[in-house]
Amino acid sequence: MITVTFHYPNGQPYLHHEAKKAKKQAASATTIFGKRGMSLEEELNESNQYYLAKEIAVVHKKPTPIQIVKVDYPQRSQAVIKEAYFKRPSTTDYNGVYHGHYIDFDAKETKSKTSFPLHNFHEHQVKHMDECLKQGGICFALIRFVVLDRIFVYPASNLITFWRAQMTGGRKSIPLDAVVADGVEINYQLNPLIPYLDGVDELIARTQQGGN
Amino acid sequence: MITVTFHYPNGQPYLHHEAKKAKKQAASATTIFGKRGMSLEEELNESNQYYLAKEIAVVHKKPTPIQIVKVDYPQRSQAVIKEAYFKRPSTTDYNGVYHGHYIDFDAKETKSKTSFPLHNFHEHQVKHMDECLKQGGICFALIRFVVLDRIFVYPASNLITFWRAQMTGGRKSIPLDAVVADGVEINYQLNPLIPYLDGVDELIARTQQGGN
Repeated sequence: MITVTFHYPNGQPYLHHEAKKAKKQAASATTIFGKRGMSLEEELNESNQYYLAKEIAVVHKKPTPIQIVKVDYPQRSQAVIKEAYFKRPSTTDYNGVYHGHYIDFDAKETKSKTSFPLHNFHEHQVKHMDECLKQGGICFALIRFVVLDRIFVYPASNLITFWRAQMTGGRKSIPLDAVVADGVEINYQLNPLIPYLDGVDELIARTQQGGN
Repeated sequence: MITVTFHYPNGQPYLHHEAKKAKKQAASATTIFGKRGMSLEEELNESNQYYLAKEIAVVHKKPTPIQIVKVDYPQRSQAVIKEAYFKRPSTTDYNGVYHGHYIDFDAKETKSKTSFPLHNFHEHQVKHMDECLKQGGICFALIRFVVLDRIFVYPASNLITFWRAQMTGGRKSIPLDAVVADGVEINYQLNPLIPYLDGVDELIARTQQGGN
């Protein structure tokens, strides 16, 4: 990827989202989190640390992509980034290796009780999932219905089908029924908090049966 | 990974390295690169774009990890990061999926004509490679000897052996002879510029023979 200057149309929604996340991150930088009120990202990071420590899987969240414009180099001190902008991610947020399998996913939340809105994904991310599937990767969305307190591992193949239908006038969200039917529900537990690899096992089994 | 404030010891070498890279990146943001004078990173990104376009592999460089401290939100405009710091990466720079295999590597250059200095790697990165190997990933260092104009795919397993020996008083670099003996030399070509997956094929073959 050759670096080019990134221009932002004013008021583009994902920016506010990224910026809000960063604001939260900056604000909480020195906070020790309790289990209550953890964000999905924090819960997943804790789960991934558990998987890593137990040598079950190596999965990391990618850093937020930033376009750096100006850096100061004070004498005898560390470099300070003085001007930078959020860039739109071209891939999903999480990837790694699990029992020889490449796994790749994004984690999203919705307050809806009935469906998962497709605008939670950018076209680049869906394209990336499709590319990974073609290489034999295990790809999915980890979807949390916040109000229902239910989490699902939802296969990328199904997500892509809904995405494409939307592009040609289909519905703009995935009904909860469809998420329940094709996804794998994950129940919170103590360690790891979100045992999402149980869902991955199911996706691997489906792949080996020639499906998915 | 729970976000914590990152403290920098003054004058730590990797910082300058990261900062220099970023300075270069900022300066070259609007430049169109010719093939001459491209950095190893640019050459690899171009190679990965080729592999992606041809549906041969999906490999991306991870964004540089940044600790964001202050963000401005001007009215009707994009968010501006006003204070941020470089963080030490806890993983390698590149990973992805190739024919169902998880691949993971870092790319490094040396001006030495006789050996590759181990200080090019941080302990975290070596640990990460070891973790990925245990999960059945294909891990390596892509090493360029700048003056010799030679590039090698060098297996992580061999790198780890030298790394551990160094920790107990062994030599602080990998001799060129060892890189030649255990690595796979890669020759520049037109498309992709650095056909490093040829080396990966060789590593996969070794793994299947029970070695590596």
